Amino acid sequence: MAPEDTPELRQLYADFESLHIMPLWTQTGSLMPQHPAPQAVPHVWKWSKLYPAAKRSGDLVPVGRGGERRALGLANPGLGGRAYVSPTLWAAIQYLGPKETAPEHRHAQNAFRFVVEGEGVWTVVSGDPVRMSRGDFLLTPGWNFHGHQNVTDKPMAWIDGLDIPFSYQNDVGFFEFGPEKLSDETTPEFSRGERLWCHPGLRPLSGLQATISSPIGAYRWEHTDRALAEQLRLEEEGHPGVFEPGHAAVRYVNPTTGGDVMPTIRAQFHRLRAGAQSAPRREVGSSVFQVFEGRGAVVLNGETHKLDVGDLFVVPSWVQWSLQAETQFDLFHFSDAPIMERLNFDRVQVG
Amino acid sequence: MAPEDTPELRQLYADFESLHIMPLWTQTGSLMPQHPAPQAVPHVWKWSKLYPAAKRSGDLVPVGRGGERRALGLANPGLGGRAYVSPTLWAAIQYLGPKETAPEHRHAQNAFRFVVEGEGVWTVVSGDPVRMSRGDFLLTPGWNFHGHQNVTDKPMAWIDGLDIPFSYQNDVGFFEFGPEKLSDETTPEFSRGERLWCHPGLRPLSGLQATISSPIGAYRWEHTDRALAEQLRLEEEGHPGVFEPGHAAVRYVNPTTGGDVMPTIRAQFHRLRAGAQSAPRREVGSSVFQVFEGRGAVVLNGETHKLDVGDLFVVPSWVQWSLQAETQFDLFHFSDAPIMERLNFDRVQVG
Amino acid sequence: MAPEDTPELRQLYADFESLHIMPLWTQTGSLMPQHPAPQAVPHVWKWSKLYPAAKRSGDLVPVGRGGERRALGLANPGLGGRAYVSPTLWAAIQYLGPKETAPEHRHAQNAFRFVVEGEGVWTVVSGDPVRMSRGDFLLTPGWNFHGHQNVTDKPMAWIDGLDIPFSYQNDVGFFEFGPEKLSDETTPEFSRGERLWCHPGLRPLSGLQATISSPIGAYRWEHTDRALAEQLRLEEEGHPGVFEPGHAAVRYVNPTTGGDVMPTIRAQFHRLRAGAQSAPRREVGSSVFQVFEGRGAVVLNGETHKLDVGDLFVVPSWVQWSLQAETQFDLFHFSDAPIMERLNFDRVQVG
Amino acid sequence: MAPEDTPELRQLYADFESLHIMPLWTQTGSLMPQHPAPQAVPHVWKWSKLYPAAKRSGDLVPVGRGGERRALGLANPGLGGRAYVSPTLWAAIQYLGPKETAPEHRHAQNAFRFVVEGEGVWTVVSGDPVRMSRGDFLLTPGWNFHGHQNVTDKPMAWIDGLDIPFSYQNDVGFFEFGPEKLSDETTPEFSRGERLWCHPGLRPLSGLQATISSPIGAYRWEHTDRALAEQLRLEEEGHPGVFEPGHAAVRYVNPTTGGDVMPTIRAQFHRLRAGAQSAPRREVGSSVFQVFEGRGAVVLNGETHKLDVGDLFVVPSWVQWSLQAETQFDLFHFSDAPIMERLNFDRVQVG
Repeated sequence: MAPEDTPELRQLYADFESLHIMPLWTQTGSLMPQHPAPQAVPHVWKWSKLYPAAKRSGDLVPVGRGGERRALGLANPGLGGRAYVSPTLWAAIQYLGPKETAPEHRHAQNAFRFVVEGEGVWTVVSGDPVRMSRGDFLLTPGWNFHGHQNVTDKPMAWIDGLDIPFSYQNDVGFFEFGPEKLSDETTPEFSRGERLWCHPGLRPLSGLQATISSPIGAYRWEHTDRALAEQLRLEEEGHPGVFEPGHAAVRYVNPTTGGDVMPTIRAQFHRLRAGAQSAPRREVGSSVFQVFEGRGAVVLNGETHKLDVGDLFVVPSWVQWSLQAETQFDLFHFSDAPIMERLNFDRVQVG
Repeated sequence: MAPEDTPELRQLYADFESLHIMPLWTQTGSLMPQHPAPQAVPHVWKWSKLYPAAKRSGDLVPVGRGGERRALGLANPGLGGRAYVSPTLWAAIQYLGPKETAPEHRHAQNAFRFVVEGEGVWTVVSGDPVRMSRGDFLLTPGWNFHGHQNVTDKPMAWIDGLDIPFSYQNDVGFFEFGPEKLSDETTPEFSRGERLWCHPGLRPLSGLQATISSPIGAYRWEHTDRALAEQLRLEEEGHPGVFEPGHAAVRYVNPTTGGDVMPTIRAQFHRLRAGAQSAPRREVGSSVFQVFEGRGAVVLNGETHKLDVGDLFVVPSWVQWSLQAETQFDLFHFSDAPIMERLNFDRVQVG
Repeated sequence: MAPEDTPELRQLYADFESLHIMPLWTQTGSLMPQHPAPQAVPHVWKWSKLYPAAKRSGDLVPVGRGGERRALGLANPGLGGRAYVSPTLWAAIQYLGPKETAPEHRHAQNAFRFVVEGEGVWTVVSGDPVRMSRGDFLLTPGWNFHGHQNVTDKPMAWIDGLDIPFSYQNDVGFFEFGPEKLSDETTPEFSRGERLWCHPGLRPLSGLQATISSPIGAYRWEHTDRALAEQLRLEEEGHPGVFEPGHAAVRYVNPTTGGDVMPTIRAQFHRLRAGAQSAPRREVGSSVFQVFEGRGAVVLNGETHKLDVGDLFVVPSWVQWSLQAETQFDLFHFSDAPIMERLNFDRVQVG
Repeated sequence: MAPEDTPELRQLYADFESLHIMPLWTQTGSLMPQHPAPQAVPHVWKWSKLYPAAKRSGDLVPVGRGGERRALGLANPGLGGRAYVSPTLWAAIQYLGPKETAPEHRHAQNAFRFVVEGEGVWTVVSGDPVRMSRGDFLLTPGWNFHGHQNVTDKPMAWIDGLDIPFSYQNDVGFFEFGPEKLSDETTPEFSRGERLWCHPGLRPLSGLQATISSPIGAYRWEHTDRALAEQLRLEEEGHPGVFEPGHAAVRYVNPTTGGDVMPTIRAQFHRLRAGAQSAPRREVGSSVFQVFEGRGAVVLNGETHKLDVGDLFVVPSWVQWSLQAETQFDLFHFSDAPIMERLNFDRVQVG
C-alpha cells in the first residue's frame, strides 16, 4: 500500500518540506503506536551514588540567586540527555549545607519534597515556615513563593519532585524571583497550614472554599506510619483496609476535596509485609518510587532490580511493575496520574 | 383588587372545593411571604430539665424492638405538637440504662449522635463498634444498620440528630429491622472506620471512591478541641484562622469530598473566647445548638437567653442569632444547611 | 415491650408536654414507616372540569397587584385542604383574559409554565419577553422578575408548576413586588434567551459560567415533538434511542450543565406509541403529568384511570405508576426528582 | 554565584553524566522561563498551497491499511521537523479521492474534522455514518472506531485536528486496526447521534449519564451560522450576547455536561463584523485557526498576516493574537485549552 517511488513522489515530498507539512502515512506506526511505547526507560538510581555526588556539589557549588537550588535531576537514559526522569516528571536530590539559604522564588510548576533522611531545614512556603524531617512529604504548589534554610551545622539532602518536563514541553511555565532572604526565619515545630488543617475530618470555617492544591504544607511521617500500620493490623484482624494482600497504601490528599494534593502530581506511600509481593501492574503515565525503609526489589518489565534505602526508580508509561519485599518494605511513590485521569487517558492493567 | 363578594363568586368557591382546587389569589401573602416566616419559633430547652425527664423514662420505659429507642424529641412549640425541632430536623435526648441494648435497625433517614457527658456506650454501625465518649460526634448515615449497647453499670445519655421531619414531610423514608442482638459486641477503643480514615491528609488506597456520607464513624473530642485551640492561638499570634474575632469554628466533613458529613445535615463546633460575641446572622434553614462547656447566652431575634452546659436551642429559618460568651464558650451546632445549599435556597445576612 | 400504664408514666407523659418534648417510642412506626407512606393520594383532575372553573374565575375575579395571579392550585385530597398537589409541588391552571396583564414580581420559588392549548400571551422574565404557545415549556427560575400579558382578544390558560409547598414547609421563600406594568411590552417571536442558547451543541462565549437554572426561557414544542419522533423512528430502524419499547422520552435540561432546568423541579415529556405500555415503576418523590395529546390511561397502585387531553394526575412518592396508550399518547411530566437526587434520597423500583 | 571552574568541578560534572543526573543550576533559566517561551513559532499556512499539495498526494499516494490516512500534517517550523503544529496539537489536511475508502481503526487520541469546502464523504464513527459537508465540525473522540468513504466522483479535502503530539510526548496512545470495509456504508442525511442529541435543551431519557466526550457526531454549519448571526443581531438591538464588540463567538460543547467536546481539545467559531478587531490576547496553551469565509488578518506578536479563505495559522502559548476583519470574517478555531484548564495552568492576559 506504500506509494511507488517515482520522481514525482520525490518532488512532492521535497515540496512538503518547503510548505512545512509532513505526511502522516509515513509515520502512523511510530506516532500512534498500538500501546504506549515510551522513549523513557525503566531505571534505578542508587542512593549510595547519588548522595555522595550531592555532597560533592555541596562543596563545589554555591547556592543562591540565579542557579537558585543545588539540585541534581535524575536524567532518564532514554530521554536524550535532558534532566527528565519521565516525559512529565522531574525528580532531583537537593542538598543544602550547614547554615545555607536557598532564596525565595515562585513558579507555575508544582513541587514537593520528600525527606528520606536528616532534618534541620525549614522551607518557607507563602510565608509559612515548614519543618522538614525524615519521612515527611512537603508541598510547594504552583505559584507559591518558597525558599529554604538550613539552621544546623550539618548538611541535609532530600528529594524534589516537580512537573518541570510537562510544563516545559507544553509551554505553561511562569517564574518570578522573590527575596534572597527568607520572609520568615522562625523555626516552629508545626506550620500554620498544619495547625489549621491537620485535624482528621475537621475543616476550619475560615477555609470552606475548595483550593486547587492542598493547604497542608507538611504531611508528617508519624501520620503516614500510623495509617499504614493500622491497615496491616486490620488485615491481621480479618477486616478490609489494605490495598492488596500484605500491601498497605495511602494517598496524600487535598482535604478540601479529597483529591490529589496538586493538579499534576499524585503522591502515595506503600508498605509491604516481609515476603509480600504486589500484583504486576501496568499504568498509563509514569511513576517514581523511593525506598524509605527496608530491603526488597522491583520487577520492571520482567527484570528484577534489588533495592536499598534511598534508591529511586522510574516506571515509564505502560511498563509492568511489581514490588517484592524482603523485609518490611516502605516506599514513597509519586506519579503524573492526575494528568492522565483529568484528561481521561488513564488505563490500568493488573496481573 | 379583591373580587366582589357575590352569590356567583360564592358558588364558584364552593365548586372549587368539590373539584379539589384552590385559588392562589386568596393566599399569596401567606404561602409566599416576603421573607421566611416560620411557624417554628426560637426556643431553649434546659438540660437541667431534659436529663431528669430522660432518667425517669429510663426507669419506666423499656428499650427494645418496636419502640426501638428511648429517645425524647424536642418539640418546637410553634409546630403543633409534633416532635419536630424545626421543619427539617429532629433533635432528641437518648438514654440507655446500665447493660441495656438498643436493637439494630436501619433507615433512610440520616442520623448522628453528640455526647455532652458520660461514656460507656458503643454504637455498632454497619458492624463496626464505635465507642461513644464525651465530646465525640458520631455518624449513622442513612441505610446503615446500627444498634447501641451500654456495657457499664451506669446510664448514659446523649443527643440524637436526624432529618426525620424532612423525610416524613417529603415521603422519602425506608425502615428495616435488624437483629435484636448487636452484630458485634466487642468494645474496641477505636472503630475500624477511624483506624482507616482518621489520619490527616491521608486516604487509604482501598477507599478511593467518593462516598455519599463520611466513612468516619466517630469524630473525637480530642481532635475538635485541638483544632479550636489552634485557631485561637493563631489569632493570638496575628495569623488568619478564626472564623471571626474571638470565634473559632470547625466543620465536621466527609474526607472523601471535603463536604458535609451527610447529604442533609451539617455539623459544626464553635468556641468563643470569654467576652467574645458573634456577629448577628440570619440564615435560610434551621439550626440547633447545644452548649458543651462554659456559660454564655444567645440572642435570638433580639431576645437574650442565658445558657448553661447541656442547654439546647433552635434557630428557625431567617431568625437572627448571635452568641455571647461569659466564660470560654463551647457549642456543638447542627443544621439543615446542606439541603438549602444543594437546592440553591441558601442565603445569609450578616450584621 | 410497651411500658406499663402507671400513674408515674402518665405523669411523665404529662411532664413531657410542658417540657416541649415527645417520646419517639410511641411514634416510630408512623414517623419512620417501612417505605414511604404518603398522606398525598393519587388523583386525577379532568381538564373538562378545570378549564370551565378557570373561565368562571376569569369572569368574576380581577387579576392584579395583591392577588397577583389568577391561578387555581390543584389540592391533593390527602393533604388536608391545602393547595398542594404533593408535599413538594404546586400545580395550577392559570387564566389570563383578553388584554389582561399579570403584574411583575419575583420570588425564591422556582416556576415553570406548560401550555396545553392556546396562544397570545407573552411572559416577561428578567426583562426578556417570551411567547407562550401550545406545547411550549417555559421557565421562571427563582428570583427572576416576571409578569404576563395577553395581547389578544381571547383568553388563554396554561399550567403553572412551582415548588411552593416545599418552600413553605421549609421556610425558604422570599418575595418582592415589581412594576405593575410589564418592563417590556414587545411581542417578539423568539426570546433573547432562545436566540442565544437554542443552537444544539453550541454555547455563546459570552455565557461560559454554569448557571443554577437554565438560561433558556422557552423550550418550543417543535423541538420536543421532533426529538420524540426521532426516537420512535430510530426504534423502528432497530437502533437505540427510546426509553423503553414503544416509549420515547426527553428531559428538559440546562444547557450550561446538562442537568435539570431548575434546582428543585425536573421536567420531561413522554410519547407512547398506540398500544404501548410503560413498565410499572415506583419512585421516591412525587410527579405530576398532563396529557398533551391522545388518549390512554394511567394505572396508579393497580387502579386504572382513563385520560383525555388536558387531564392532570399526581403520583405521590412510592406509588406505582404505568402509562397505557390507546392512541399515540403524549404527556408532559414534572417532578421533584432533583430534590431527591441532590439529597441522595432517590430510589427507583421498576416492574 | 556560578561555581568556580576547577578540575574538581569538571570531574563532578563528568561523574554526573555517568550517574544519569544533571544539575538544575546550569539550566534553571531555560527550563523554567519567566513566562512561556515556546519553541513553536507563529506561522501561517496558505490554503492555496496546501490544497494543491493534497491533490498531488491524491494522485500519487494510495490510501489504505498501513498508512491509514492520506493526511498532511502542519509542521511548526520551530518544532524541529516533526508534524506538530504545536507541542500538543496536530492539524492536517486530509484528502480522499472519488470512491475511495479510508479503512476503520481506533486510537486513544481524540480527533475531529472541520470542512472548509466540499461534500460527499461520510465518516463512520462507532458504526454511525456521519455526512461531512461544508462548515460542519465532526467528532471522533478517543477509542471510537472510524473510517471514511467518498461516495462521489469528486475528491474531497478537510481539516483533521488531534492531540497526537500530546499523546506521543506523554505516552498515552493506544491504536487498533478495524475492518478495511466500513461497518456501515449507508449515507443518511443525519447521523443517529444527531437525531438523538441535536434538539436544543433536550436530552433523551436513554442517555442520562455524562459522557467523557460529546455524543454529537456532527455540529452542522446551519446551526453555527444561525447562532453567530443571532449574536450580532442582538448586539445591533442593544442586548448582550457577543463576546466583545463586533465579535460573535460560540463554543462547541458536550450536551451531557455543557463542557468541551473532548477532554483535550476545545473548538470554537468566531465571526467578526467587517471592520471589527478583537482585543489583543495572550493565553497559556496553543491554538489553531482556519479562515472559513471572508478576508482579514491576524496580528501575532505584533506582526500582521493577511488571511484568505482556508488559510490556517497557529498561535503558540503566550503569543499575543488579534483578529482584524476586512469583510465579515468567519474563523474556525481549536485549541488545547481543556488541558490547560483541567490542570490549572490556564492564564489569560487581555489587551
